[in-house]
Amino acid sequence: MFHFRTKYAADDERGFERMENPGYCPGSFDSFHRPPSDDDDDEMVDIAGATLDFTSTDDVPPLSTGGYEEYSSSRVAGMNGNSPSKLVDPLEDLVPGVGTYEDFNTIDWVREKSKDRDRHREITNKSRQSTVALLHSVVDAFSGWLLMLLVGLMSGALAGGIDIAAHWLTDMKGGLCLKGFWFNHEHCCWTSNETTFQERDQCPQWKSWAELITGTSEGAFPYIVNYMMYIFWALLFSFLAVTLVRAFAPYACGSGIPEIKTILSGFIIRGYLGKWTLIIKTITLVLAVSSGLSLGKEGPLVHVACCCANILCHLFTKYRKNEAKRREVLSAAAAVGVSVAFGAPIGGVLFSLEEVSYYFPLKTLWRSFFAALVAAFTLRSINPFGNSRLVLFYVEFHAPWHLVELAPFILLGIFGGLWGALFIKANIAWCRIRKTTCLGRYPVIEVLVVAALTALLAYPNSYTRMSGSELISELFNDCSLLDSSQLCGYKQPTNTSETGVGNSLADRPAGEGLYTALWQLALALLFKMVITIFTFGMKVPSGLFIPSMAVGAIAGRLLGVGMEQLAYYNHEWLIFKGWCSPGADCITPGLYAMVGAAACLGGVTRMTVSLVVIMFELTGGLEYIVPLMAATMTSKWVADAFGREGIYEAHIRLNGYPFLEPKEEFEHSSLAVDVMRPRRSDPALAVLTQEGMTVGEVESLVESTHYSGFPVVVSQESPRLVGFVFRRDLLISIDNARKRQEGVVSASLVVFSEHAPSQPPDAPSPLRLRGIMDLSPFTVTDHTPMDITVDIFRKLGLRQCLVTHNGRLLGIITKKDILKHLAQIANRDPESILFN
Amino acid sequence: MFHFRTKYAADDERGFERMENPGYCPGSFDSFHRPPSDDDDDEMVDIAGATLDFTSTDDVPPLSTGGYEEYSSSRVAGMNGNSPSKLVDPLEDLVPGVGTYEDFNTIDWVREKSKDRDRHREITNKSRQSTVALLHSVVDAFSGWLLMLLVGLMSGALAGGIDIAAHWLTDMKGGLCLKGFWFNHEHCCWTSNETTFQERDQCPQWKSWAELITGTSEGAFPYIVNYMMYIFWALLFSFLAVTLVRAFAPYACGSGIPEIKTILSGFIIRGYLGKWTLIIKTITLVLAVSSGLSLGKEGPLVHVACCCANILCHLFTKYRKNEAKRREVLSAAAAVGVSVAFGAPIGGVLFSLEEVSYYFPLKTLWRSFFAALVAAFTLRSINPFGNSRLVLFYVEFHAPWHLVELAPFILLGIFGGLWGALFIKANIAWCRIRKTTCLGRYPVIEVLVVAALTALLAYPNSYTRMSGSELISELFNDCSLLDSSQLCGYKQPTNTSETGVGNSLADRPAGEGLYTALWQLALALLFKMVITIFTFGMKVPSGLFIPSMAVGAIAGRLLGVGMEQLAYYNHEWLIFKGWCSPGADCITPGLYAMVGAAACLGGVTRMTVSLVVIMFELTGGLEYIVPLMAATMTSKWVADAFGREGIYEAHIRLNGYPFLEPKEEFEHSSLAVDVMRPRRSDPALAVLTQEGMTVGEVESLVESTHYSGFPVVVSQESPRLVGFVFRRDLLISIDNARKRQEGVVSASLVVFSEHAPSQPPDAPSPLRLRGIMDLSPFTVTDHTPMDITVDIFRKLGLRQCLVTHNGRLLGIITKKDILKHLAQIANRDPESILFN
Repeated sequence: MFHFRTKYAADDERGFERMENPGYCPGSFDSFHRPPSDDDDDEMVDIAGATLDFTSTDDVPPLSTGGYEEYSSSRVAGMNGNSPSKLVDPLEDLVPGVGTYEDFNTIDWVREKSKDRDRHREITNKSRQSTVALLHSVVDAFSGWLLMLLVGLMSGALAGGIDIAAHWLTDMKGGLCLKGFWFNHEHCCWTSNETTFQERDQCPQWKSWAELITGTSEGAFPYIVNYMMYIFWALLFSFLAVTLVRAFAPYACGSGIPEIKTILSGFIIRGYLGKWTLIIKTITLVLAVSSGLSLGKEGPLVHVACCCANILCHLFTKYRKNEAKRREVLSAAAAVGVSVAFGAPIGGVLFSLEEVSYYFPLKTLWRSFFAALVAAFTLRSINPFGNSRLVLFYVEFHAPWHLVELAPFILLGIFGGLWGALFIKANIAWCRIRKTTCLGRYPVIEVLVVAALTALLAYPNSYTRMSGSELISELFNDCSLLDSSQLCGYKQPTNTSETGVGNSLADRPAGEGLYTALWQLALALLFKMVITIFTFGMKVPSGLFIPSMAVGAIAGRLLGVGMEQLAYYNHEWLIFKGWCSPGADCITPGLYAMVGAAACLGGVTRMTVSLVVIMFELTGGLEYIVPLMAATMTSKWVADAFGREGIYEAHIRLNGYPFLEPKEEFEHSSLAVDVMRPRRSDPALAVLTQEGMTVGEVESLVESTHYSGFPVVVSQESPRLVGFVFRRDLLISIDNARKRQEGVVSASLVVFSEHAPSQPPDAPSPLRLRGIMDLSPFTVTDHTPMDITVDIFRKLGLRQCLVTHNGRLLGIITKKDILKHLAQIANRDPESILFN
Repeated sequence: MFHFRTKYAADDERGFERMENPGYCPGSFDSFHRPPSDDDDDEMVDIAGATLDFTSTDDVPPLSTGGYEEYSSSRVAGMNGNSPSKLVDPLEDLVPGVGTYEDFNTIDWVREKSKDRDRHREITNKSRQSTVALLHSVVDAFSGWLLMLLVGLMSGALAGGIDIAAHWLTDMKGGLCLKGFWFNHEHCCWTSNETTFQERDQCPQWKSWAELITGTSEGAFPYIVNYMMYIFWALLFSFLAVTLVRAFAPYACGSGIPEIKTILSGFIIRGYLGKWTLIIKTITLVLAVSSGLSLGKEGPLVHVACCCANILCHLFTKYRKNEAKRREVLSAAAAVGVSVAFGAPIGGVLFSLEEVSYYFPLKTLWRSFFAALVAAFTLRSINPFGNSRLVLFYVEFHAPWHLVELAPFILLGIFGGLWGALFIKANIAWCRIRKTTCLGRYPVIEVLVVAALTALLAYPNSYTRMSGSELISELFNDCSLLDSSQLCGYKQPTNTSETGVGNSLADRPAGEGLYTALWQLALALLFKMVITIFTFGMKVPSGLFIPSMAVGAIAGRLLGVGMEQLAYYNHEWLIFKGWCSPGADCITPGLYAMVGAAACLGGVTRMTVSLVVIMFELTGGLEYIVPLMAATMTSKWVADAFGREGIYEAHIRLNGYPFLEPKEEFEHSSLAVDVMRPRRSDPALAVLTQEGMTVGEVESLVESTHYSGFPVVVSQESPRLVGFVFRRDLLISIDNARKRQEGVVSASLVVFSEHAPSQPPDAPSPLRLRGIMDLSPFTVTDHTPMDITVDIFRKLGLRQCLVTHNGRLLGIITKKDILKHLAQIANRDPESILFN
């Protein structure tokens, strides 16, 4: 879905090429000889060209074990506390690129976090020496908060802009303001004196297209003109959106949440959070939402917030140069995205914690919360909804709910779960068709066809013609006596003195208008349920929250009105007796709509707590937590019965990203020895020895394999593990040494040990590479159960782990091996795991 | 503080004895020969006597490596997926006690979680075979939710009972209801017709003690009688409380949160969450709160909820037998505790996440939330406050706040931070005096003296005479025009037509009553600040939330009234211009009180997000999050400048519990080799060899050391690591084999390898112990930086980790070693770490 054949065909082919490699670790290291700064997009997740120059100024002390001291890369920058001294090998500290990552590769969390701790330690140590350094350390400590402030401000401002622009363009499909084309409908009629309370939407300044073109708004012809104009604008907006995405930022399509989940788990996707993606996603999101397609802006807003965070990270060295630290900021940005989407800061933080984040320390919790608040308040001061409300759908219910109502709420939960499971299956099937057939080659035509269909079918029905968020607002709303909307088309009570005045919200019998509305709603429900399957995954920015909520809200409202009428006409029934007397306001159909929305969204995304909290923040009352909880839990359980994956995990798997789901337990009872490479039939593990190999031998070993790293052992005979060296670091260092260091030829000995072995005097000078070797590689024994191994991978964020037996090296397990093993257990194609 | 000399002297001495041991691992294994069920308290965290009988029915498959198959303990219960077969060594599965823990020891999270996965796997596998087993697996899957429901119901009911009882006893200090002594003051006057609106508290049915004894309530003598009775009841209640605690459940004292944090991090304290502790803590909490001491019931409620959870765990095998699973339930119970204490379920969950829990997977998040909701609704249906409110202090403010007000809010934050830091230092110093001097020997006298002092000083001042929560309620409250309380003693506006009617809450000048109230409040502030230092840590149940909040609320209210008067008399000042016109309601002193309360509580406990969310749930409005956030953040930063520890961490350290703070980064740059034992001057590491040692040799090695576990290596010459065996398991197994297995004598060979070595035919039969050996011990290399090692310990919940160099075993690092190292770095006494 994210691979454009036109531009990204090469990438796809690389992926396929990889799948054919028999090696366990087929990294894309072929391209590393490119100068690392050839990439024009410098706001990427990964800064290929960045040298880890701060490691060069590290205090590197003598290791306590003795004599020869040498620079050891940041992971082993030890210090004995008593005698800090500086003995940096001058050779090592200028090699650029060591310690960075290739595109579509997984970072090593431990290494990144260790790097940051070294950096922090260095600043702390320096701060004791001078006031400037002390100031620097204070600035460094507060830079995280400052960054959060900026992320909040920028995301809030962007979200406000998107809201305003989308509102304006959506209205433009219907007509134009004569006072100025830049006014939206509501703004246009705001100050008009001729607006009556009954017809708030009508004012002479706002002209529908039919009025502008034909001069009249009555009759069949103007209706057709309006219809045509509606379709025209929808097609224009969607065409613009998909063309912009295709031309400038292919990564701007979709909701972005599956990719952000993967990035947060430690994957590198260059340019996914870059400035072009941000600009194009912001513009095309407005266009896509305005085109009337069945999509929302909530998921993409998370992507936009993450782009903002990633770009702002460049202002601070601490975050620019460290992949792990940057992911902490991105986790907070995900919270910001939901916070501005719904005006729910606490819900946003919990969403990030529950749904998106991989590594979420407490520090990030505080900062996410801060950023989410800043963003929410920025948005409120922009006031895009014109009502100074923070939340998207403000609702205030007055009636309490009754325990009996739990039954319909649970019914809604079951509906939400069923729909969620069905939607995921259908959408994934459709996306797979798009990926594997020629359909994927014509994204523009696909978008245009879906947009045309949507507009054609949506216009006649007023509930599909309005935007998704307007629809949800209307459905959530409780009817007051004076409400003029069709949904509130109840028969006015005849006996006003008793029920009408005393309790203006009492249950009333449904009238003509309401029955029409119900029919239209039922059709809208069907339409939304089908069209969303085809919309989500197209090459335009598309969120899933609003369409899912719309489906649930319609279903809920229908059920709610049904219950209301049932209660009105059957007060004497046992289930209504005692709490629903005539003339009382027993049933609130708006609450049913809200519960339904939560249930459907829960079925699709499998969110639970964060969803309930978001809904709680929308209503502001603890009273309705139990219905919401009951519905979302039921929905999750029902949907889980059909498949454990939410829509985001399903898309991650569809795209073959290396994502180790932290929620699910590893159920199988295999051992590390069953998963590790080499398998019994494979050739032996490619290892380096700590001394005794020449530069030429090392190079030919590296050339002949595709592995992204090599274990270093004592000797071939005694394969006791010494360390681990990354292919990229190895090649860069040898390359660099050949260019700069005298006497390094193919016959030079490569030495990983502490002490250089004695050599004949005429031998070429050895190449010491202990500095790039990871001296503390993770190991497990061959008998370690895989559940423990998977736990270690998840919790420590490992990329690979070595397997030993009685102290001897046996093999290696990479993240990809684990994912393949998991796929195999689940009877899926293990070759669908593309990346490492 | 928690060690009663009387009963727990033995424990203390054991602690001291341990400190003298030079070994790295001086576990208390001396006592293991006791029969494991000698403990009369069977509701403990650890079930010493429980046999892990479910491991005995595990499917243990042939290991892929070949020939001789043998039962290996649950950690290596591997299965190759294809050929599940059952080859359990009949010897191993009946040894009771293998895999359990001693009191005051740390659990191995990895082992516990692995055990649970094995159990789950077994149930899943069986469920495919029969319907009964399928039903069992469904019941098993839902037992967690059922348990949560029960915990919620029980804790909610207990909290309701405590509230009602405490209210009644508190009122009894003042007088008696003639209608029935079991009515509290409010209940007594509820139905009285003679109660006027002005004097709601007065009704003929309620008689103060002076009225009952002297027959009159006017004059000096009745006042003295009431005073005396107040002191009498306070002394009686506190005496009862401390005596009950001493006699029946010494663990019931204090707030319990430090211990629960430690237990959740994996420590075993037997009986801390037992039924006696629950009963006594519930009763004495009511007594302690009623006695008028400066303490709250919020922390103890967390303890009570955890006791409930621990006791209810016994109903479900899944939780009874697994320490890790049980801790998940306890995490949820901590959320329940706060939920019922404040009526803030979301805040409770975040409190558990932020402050208490160690291991908090997403599953626990959902369940905590569910349990917290159930508890809150149970409490609401009991309705202890008589107002059908869920929250303890319901407030509703009407006025918005202005940006200028951030300055006083931050001031309150600074006050809160300073007070928090000071309080912690003073309280810890006092507790240390109690621990080290003879003061600790007279807990009853201490409590009586403090109670007498409190009552003596508190009675004359109406703000100290009322209970802490009443005081906070009153301070949070916004004054309406008709409010009769002293705090609302404003001068009535003369020009009612303009300001009085139009805006009933407009700022007014302070009157006589308010000035008196301010004086009394200032005295109350001083009194509370001092007395709380001496109260917290006494041998009665004592929470810190209410006293801290009271201090902050008083300070905030004082500042708020000050600001209000400043604004009233100086409308023309630049800072008030533009937002505070005459007759407007600019300043809400109640909001200041709330912000102050949050700041002080934040300074003491260092909570941030959870605190803000609790406060947000109390007010129900997003509007005040920014002031609260600003104050708590300032408070945390200010307090952190004086010391990073919150009160709970400080108490944990004071008691020498082995708690590895997950919040703080390890800053020092030492390596694993610097921390591991043996040190260079120490004797070599005590190891077992996989074959070649006799039973007698093993026994003498175990006897001569105090280590709680021994690495097993290939041979003394080639110390390559094979596995790790726990002292307790080793001793139990040998003991058992000597009793039951024929031919096992001191000369028998102990074999840990897969294949028994060939022996002369007349040799005694070897004792195979591979089954109790952990075949996948965690290892790090000697060059691993300690920051990474600490991270591994925290994230995986390790108890020990072995250190290797080039595949050879060098040493061992235990949690205690790390804590000692941390203490050393922080210039503290490393010997203060008592337990492992």
